Amino acid sequence: MLSTMQDGPLSLATLLRYASTAKAAGEVATWTGDDVRRLSYSDLGRQAGRLANALSSLGVGLTDRVATFMWNNNEHLVAYNAIPAMGSVLHALNIRLFPEQLVYVANHAEDKVILLDGSLVPLLAPLLPQLEAVEHVVVVNGDPASLEAPAGVEVHGYDELLGAQSEDYDYPVVDERQAAAMCYTSGTTGEPKGVVYSHRSTFLHSMHVCTGDGMSLSARDDVLTIVPMFHANAWGLPYAALMCGASLLMPDRFLQPEPILAMMAAEKPSFAAAVPTIWTGVLGQLATHPQDITHLRQVIVGGSAVPPAMMRAFDDEHGVTVVHAWGMTEMSPLGSVAHPPPGATGDEKWAYRISQGQFPVQVEARLVDDDGAIVPHDGESLGEVEVRGPWITASYYAPDGVAVDEAKFHDGWLRTGDVGRITPDGYLTLVDRSKDVIKSGGEWISSVDMENAVMAHPDVTEAAVIGVPDPNWDERPLVAVVLADGASAGAEDLRSSLEAHFAKWQLPEHWAFVKEVPKTSVGKFDKKVLRKQYADGELEVVELGAPKPRTA
Amino acid sequence: MLSTMQDGPLSLATLLRYASTAKAAGEVATWTGDDVRRLSYSDLGRQAGRLANALSSLGVGLTDRVATFMWNNNEHLVAYNAIPAMGSVLHALNIRLFPEQLVYVANHAEDKVILLDGSLVPLLAPLLPQLEAVEHVVVVNGDPASLEAPAGVEVHGYDELLGAQSEDYDYPVVDERQAAAMCYTSGTTGEPKGVVYSHRSTFLHSMHVCTGDGMSLSARDDVLTIVPMFHANAWGLPYAALMCGASLLMPDRFLQPEPILAMMAAEKPSFAAAVPTIWTGVLGQLATHPQDITHLRQVIVGGSAVPPAMMRAFDDEHGVTVVHAWGMTEMSPLGSVAHPPPGATGDEKWAYRISQGQFPVQVEARLVDDDGAIVPHDGESLGEVEVRGPWITASYYAPDGVAVDEAKFHDGWLRTGDVGRITPDGYLTLVDRSKDVIKSGGEWISSVDMENAVMAHPDVTEAAVIGVPDPNWDERPLVAVVLADGASAGAEDLRSSLEAHFAKWQLPEHWAFVKEVPKTSVGKFDKKVLRKQYADGELEVVELGAPKPRTA
Repeated sequence: MLSTMQDGPLSLATLLRYASTAKAAGEVATWTGDDVRRLSYSDLGRQAGRLANALSSLGVGLTDRVATFMWNNNEHLVAYNAIPAMGSVLHALNIRLFPEQLVYVANHAEDKVILLDGSLVPLLAPLLPQLEAVEHVVVVNGDPASLEAPAGVEVHGYDELLGAQSEDYDYPVVDERQAAAMCYTSGTTGEPKGVVYSHRSTFLHSMHVCTGDGMSLSARDDVLTIVPMFHANAWGLPYAALMCGASLLMPDRFLQPEPILAMMAAEKPSFAAAVPTIWTGVLGQLATHPQDITHLRQVIVGGSAVPPAMMRAFDDEHGVTVVHAWGMTEMSPLGSVAHPPPGATGDEKWAYRISQGQFPVQVEARLVDDDGAIVPHDGESLGEVEVRGPWITASYYAPDGVAVDEAKFHDGWLRTGDVGRITPDGYLTLVDRSKDVIKSGGEWISSVDMENAVMAHPDVTEAAVIGVPDPNWDERPLVAVVLADGASAGAEDLRSSLEAHFAKWQLPEHWAFVKEVPKTSVGKFDKKVLRKQYADGELEVVELGAPKPRTA
Repeated sequence: MLSTMQDGPLSLATLLRYASTAKAAGEVATWTGDDVRRLSYSDLGRQAGRLANALSSLGVGLTDRVATFMWNNNEHLVAYNAIPAMGSVLHALNIRLFPEQLVYVANHAEDKVILLDGSLVPLLAPLLPQLEAVEHVVVVNGDPASLEAPAGVEVHGYDELLGAQSEDYDYPVVDERQAAAMCYTSGTTGEPKGVVYSHRSTFLHSMHVCTGDGMSLSARDDVLTIVPMFHANAWGLPYAALMCGASLLMPDRFLQPEPILAMMAAEKPSFAAAVPTIWTGVLGQLATHPQDITHLRQVIVGGSAVPPAMMRAFDDEHGVTVVHAWGMTEMSPLGSVAHPPPGATGDEKWAYRISQGQFPVQVEARLVDDDGAIVPHDGESLGEVEVRGPWITASYYAPDGVAVDEAKFHDGWLRTGDVGRITPDGYLTLVDRSKDVIKSGGEWISSVDMENAVMAHPDVTEAAVIGVPDPNWDERPLVAVVLADGASAGAEDLRSSLEAHFAKWQLPEHWAFVKEVPKTSVGKFDKKVLRKQYADGELEVVELGAPKPRTA
């Protein structure tokens, strides 16, 4: 029995038309270094019409990919809306990818046009000759003459191109499962992989951001959006803001603590979103340059785990609530958000706040062990987190129809590669990446938990934990330790200090005292190198007594 | 280019599973006359499992209709969730329908099972022999022995039936466009017409209720749901509350001002929803029995226009914000909600608050004139309101495939039958039902506006305005007036008093002084009777000079 309901699509064209009329008073403002450039949502609607006409005049049609290589600013928001609304596909290029990755993703997506910020011309110009599908580059906020066109590519100035266009565009009706935008993961292993969002997934995700289980975004908000629009859709804030009429404050290229605090002082945003390192910098700046930031009703932090000390500093010193969120490019990106349940207080509330948060109804999560068996949500059992839902990807983009990295999917669920526990009421705590978790005697030991415990010892500067092969246990933890200058703690001392935090069978017997832990280019522990050093016999290992093998 | 997103359905089974785990701490509480019966959402999940198993044991399968004939209470909420989750179709029968309408809708929907509140046995028992598809009646909160089973019908006690059942039920995956629930309009003309909601439409509508453009519902709310669950889905509150973890306070059969204020005093809900007449009664009771009701952060009022004086009384005397909403059974039911835009103050804010409100992005609205032409959203031009969107019905339920009342639909839009104006920012003000609007010289005159203006004259007790045929103007307004005792105003005086409010060509020339305006059984002006009296020459009409025909 079918319902009698209408069957029209959830559509980003509808969202654009709506925002530019019903929420016409909302605005996006971009920091210029000492002031803002403003664009009301009604003017945004007009600019989007001009951009859609301009792109059509360049031959962009349904499902053609249009890339952006831009900062968070007014023009990027116009592109975010015009491109999907006209039935084309927005591809926000991550300006921080390595050159060969940039070339790969632009070619893999077959980007036909690139909107390029004037300040980023020097970064992209050398790569342009390698971008096989690109026919047009539109220079935004800059001089088109600054870019020499490679053969087969036309260069345009944004203002000149749009100036001649009508503000009216007859946006097509597209199926809600059609592509609206795409984003590539910046995976550290293998080629970047493309995720293709639909009108449906983006529309639903935007609605979620406007609810209390998301970010409670409303027309009363002004959202300082520091998280880049080329990174996981700026956590869904741009579309959600248009949906509810929240205003947006964009930092453009001014991402240092000083300008961020200057734009906050000038515009007094009610909401802000950025990764932890940005907030660490802001806190540092505030310590020496006090400023009232209580205009912020909430700060969303994600991208990596938030240090609890940072959350407390915002709470205690600045009266601002920091909310932790977790997600992935593959998840549009919002998975869980750490709103404590109403009524929680004190330590219980803090336990909720420092978790990765609770999943909303739209994102189902489960934990799966090494054998693919489901692990209970009891707040203790560990498993790899798998998720499914209408804004979770089912695959990676494969223009040639050849499935990409099928190991990332499992019976219709996305394998996140993260290991954690989930409470009965659905709060997630991550403990490790699945490739780093130590599988010992049929149980899992979190390398991250053990590293944190070892690093809590006053003699230790750094500690990295990897699993090493063991005939009785499959794997056992090996701790690579960097001691503080002049410190003398031995393996026995350090192991004793762990006894309060780990079961006896978990206590590590392999210890390597090293000068430094090998690190990746972005400063993370490079456990791949550490494992190879161990395999090649390059680590000098202190061996303590192994625990007795457990009986099943 | 299809997206790579997962394609799972939006599903009320998912919502039920989610609410009973992630939002397990939420609860529904039902007033018993002097206290509440509570059911946590985790227990609701268990009860829903038992009900689903019980209904399965009675032979209820996918798409079978299960009716409820119940008050707002814990058991009704269990039924609301279990029935769609198991892939069957919930049909909440309106206990206030006339007997012949009840028989019609239960037969039209082919209800197989009825869940019947014990207190309502006397109301339904006489009709049961006429309900052709009913095989089982389950008496809830009452003695099954109080109901004599007609031939072919089995009677069960709810507790006995559920007691033996497992709390685990393997809810099926159903397409999101499948029927979840149905509701019949209680149209005053013709047979009631069925609207069939889908899992998709209900899920999306619930998300909307949780946003600021809806009702900002969240886990911090406790929602006094007075609007009946058998009337337009209780405005979507039951499903939305489960989605976000808001608690629900149900009045059961205690719908008078005194018990409503008693349950408010006991439970201190943060949110309440009811039609204006309920609130008028509550205000009256508060006048003689003062009580602090500032625990209410918001009161949603809909179903008919809210008297501005009532909104001001709640504001000024009780510190409670009343928010006006407009919708229809055909719209799930939420259309527009009168949240003023942020920044609006004083008279401007009040103008927004007494409008029918702003449409959300999911409900597109347009105004259409008599010729089917689109009328601009300029805040002045009048047209019939047409709406479309994912929770608007596209047709009425037709078990035999024969389209019902096609005149209610227009190119994929629902014709609401309401005439109004819409501002450029999407706020709707209704001025008339389309069948009552006066079409004069190609323009529309609102009968409601004119009635209000005439009734503002101190000599007038009642005034009803109808359109009567006119050779030059198509229609002209005729005002039927009831003068106050001893009053002597004539037609000229009354017409003069309208000059400040209407254009010269709109001023009515036909006046009938009557003893009373004919009324329907629910006390509304019966303009059908008035039109017939005029046509039959039964009205004594004072004729003033007609305006000159306008030139086009």
